Amino acid sequence: MATSIEHANAEAARRIQAAQPWLEDLVAARDAIPALRERRLLHAGPPVTWERMCGPMRGAVIGAAIYEGWAEAPEQAEAMASGGGIAFDPCHHHGAVGPMAGIISPSMPVFAVRNRAAGNTAYSTMNEGLGKVLRYGAYDASVLDRLRWMRDSLAPVLKAAIHRAGGFDLRVLIAQALQMGDECHNRNKAATSLFFRALAPHLLRAPLPGDRVAAAADFLNANDTFFLNLAMASCKSALDAAHGIPGSTVVTTMARNGTDFGIRISGLGGRWFTGPARVPKGLYFPGFGPEDANPDIGDSAITETAGLGGFAMAAAPAIVTFVGGTVDLARTSTLRMYEITLAENEAYRIPALDFRGTPTAIDLRKVVETGILPVINTGIAHRRPGIGQVGAGLTEPPEECFHAALAALVEEQAARR
Amino acid sequence: MATSIEHANAEAARRIQAAQPWLEDLVAARDAIPALRERRLLHAGPPVTWERMCGPMRGAVIGAAIYEGWAEAPEQAEAMASGGGIAFDPCHHHGAVGPMAGIISPSMPVFAVRNRAAGNTAYSTMNEGLGKVLRYGAYDASVLDRLRWMRDSLAPVLKAAIHRAGGFDLRVLIAQALQMGDECHNRNKAATSLFFRALAPHLLRAPLPGDRVAAAADFLNANDTFFLNLAMASCKSALDAAHGIPGSTVVTTMARNGTDFGIRISGLGGRWFTGPARVPKGLYFPGFGPEDANPDIGDSAITETAGLGGFAMAAAPAIVTFVGGTVDLARTSTLRMYEITLAENEAYRIPALDFRGTPTAIDLRKVVETGILPVINTGIAHRRPGIGQVGAGLTEPPEECFHAALAALVEEQAARR
Repeated sequence: MATSIEHANAEAARRIQAAQPWLEDLVAARDAIPALRERRLLHAGPPVTWERMCGPMRGAVIGAAIYEGWAEAPEQAEAMASGGGIAFDPCHHHGAVGPMAGIISPSMPVFAVRNRAAGNTAYSTMNEGLGKVLRYGAYDASVLDRLRWMRDSLAPVLKAAIHRAGGFDLRVLIAQALQMGDECHNRNKAATSLFFRALAPHLLRAPLPGDRVAAAADFLNANDTFFLNLAMASCKSALDAAHGIPGSTVVTTMARNGTDFGIRISGLGGRWFTGPARVPKGLYFPGFGPEDANPDIGDSAITETAGLGGFAMAAAPAIVTFVGGTVDLARTSTLRMYEITLAENEAYRIPALDFRGTPTAIDLRKVVETGILPVINTGIAHRRPGIGQVGAGLTEPPEECFHAALAALVEEQAARR
Repeated sequence: MATSIEHANAEAARRIQAAQPWLEDLVAARDAIPALRERRLLHAGPPVTWERMCGPMRGAVIGAAIYEGWAEAPEQAEAMASGGGIAFDPCHHHGAVGPMAGIISPSMPVFAVRNRAAGNTAYSTMNEGLGKVLRYGAYDASVLDRLRWMRDSLAPVLKAAIHRAGGFDLRVLIAQALQMGDECHNRNKAATSLFFRALAPHLLRAPLPGDRVAAAADFLNANDTFFLNLAMASCKSALDAAHGIPGSTVVTTMARNGTDFGIRISGLGGRWFTGPARVPKGLYFPGFGPEDANPDIGDSAITETAGLGGFAMAAAPAIVTFVGGTVDLARTSTLRMYEITLAENEAYRIPALDFRGTPTAIDLRKVVETGILPVINTGIAHRRPGIGQVGAGLTEPPEECFHAALAALVEEQAARR
């Protein structure tokens, strides 16, 4: 038995590292994800009902319903959502990921990131920037106007540039960004810069009105976090390829809906193992404190699941000015993660650790044996919709996720005997 | 006496840190530097005659003479140069700096970087990219065609963008690049990316033919070293402001012409103290070795003189793949430089050292007392003109520069008493 687990895990670790995420297209979500041909919204984290949704996620649902023209006013959207008029499903059930509330609605453009090694495709929305944004549950006119502009004006420009370029190798961009102080979760300044540079020659030659192209470039340029959603889709494309290997104890999903934290295990199919999402510890923006914080939310922990984000913090010492802690903490966080992972990533390396590969392929068994929980660095949302980000910090999954998953594994092994 | 030296040095260190290098313009060298209204070339390092010039510098002189239309063929250019038909002067005598051979000829466009704190301006050429380039002594048709294109097509585009932007704050770009794995001498990938991002909105709106703008963007984008010359001019603008303080023992110039290494001291006026340039130790490109290497050449050690480059290597662990050595060497190189400097830069900080400021303001006395020589990381030129870069590595100034400078200081003090 142990041998077959080792084999299965080695294969999972191999597939994660072998992934070749390639940005291939930017398409309407409904054209990429069949489930969005109905009145449905995808959300971050494990499954959750309207009743149990946290404030920021409810806000984002209301905003998306108005954006899609399903409702005209917040009250109407709320009634529709609570009355069963909108279906909900996790992004993760449809090859997709979304930061914070993670709402994907049918007409939103999504990046299509194809894992050229395994052939699967992952999807993510475009990053809206900072401030008042849907993913933090804001839905006023400025938020919805921006989403419409992103759909109608930004997306066609980016799509044309992506097509003109023949797509972009995101693995190379991430690998370089790790050598430039990013960990590709809360710090994406280098990756965004490199992506912008890669895109620019095609923006400059796009057969589209110059003012629209310039506005698109400005939008990307003004947001150092733009690459986050591409990093997330890259990681999703790698981990989906490693999911579903019988016997593997590798963690292929860590995601939060703001109420529950959920994980999935490669060898345990579609089952989620959940526990209550914790409130991150970190630095708050002026005027805010822990009492304002929503519990941990978003699919962005897919970066940690793939060995980036908190797992790669040693590559990004400057991040401590944002998430708190010391440079030494950034380094030791990464070092600790080698104790619960199976591989050191061949493509993604950390200069400050003498080019050691990022800790990759979390082994459920190691987490339980060592009691070391995966470290996640994350933005902190206000618990009420519409206020937005109030800080950033570090957090961990609730340990019960891992205990429940291990119990399920033991049961399954017993059943097979 | 000691007190007045301390005061003078504190003022020098203050001025270096207070510098606010601002990219203000791109102009023909002859319009910025009066000495270039005659048949004269500026070169890297301390003064040197044609007879004592190394191979790459002679090659660059020949190329520049043809580029300027002073000669039609290399033999003619060589005869002109050796016969006194071309005047030579160090870049450093005219507020300018140039990498490697460092040749600046009258019609070459130069960046004008104004130190807004002190009011002085420093100049540098545009970086030509890698491969066969004039600064390594190459002068075939491809090299000269590129230089003409840079003058006639690239420069007007960049100039328009710089003007449209109202210039660029290079201090901010350098500070950010240090948090993104650059040390701004041999690694400028982040700085170039950030500069490109800053420039892009203005390129996209430049009132110039689209194909020229696109070609200009491509050129910048293809060369991760593009920012080097801007970093050099920034450092020059800071150090010139700190030069000429009576009694100060701060090193304000370190520069090499490929034959001699020369330094200048703030309190010792225009005098150069020189010694033979050493051959750097480092990594060679395939097919080349130390026997191919020209001794240390170029004004780019201005970055180290200002506390960047080799002094900031702890910020740039990935550079060891280029210049050789280990990540630990990068870190200890920086730490060692604190022993010969007077200040920790307030603007330029190193995340990996808990945001400690870069070691700034080299004190001649400390160099002599400790026997620790400044560390310089550098490209290595082939000793024959026209071949180009053959590697990169680390080197040090010859210690006799510092001994000679100290002797001069002692003499001067004696004379004053």
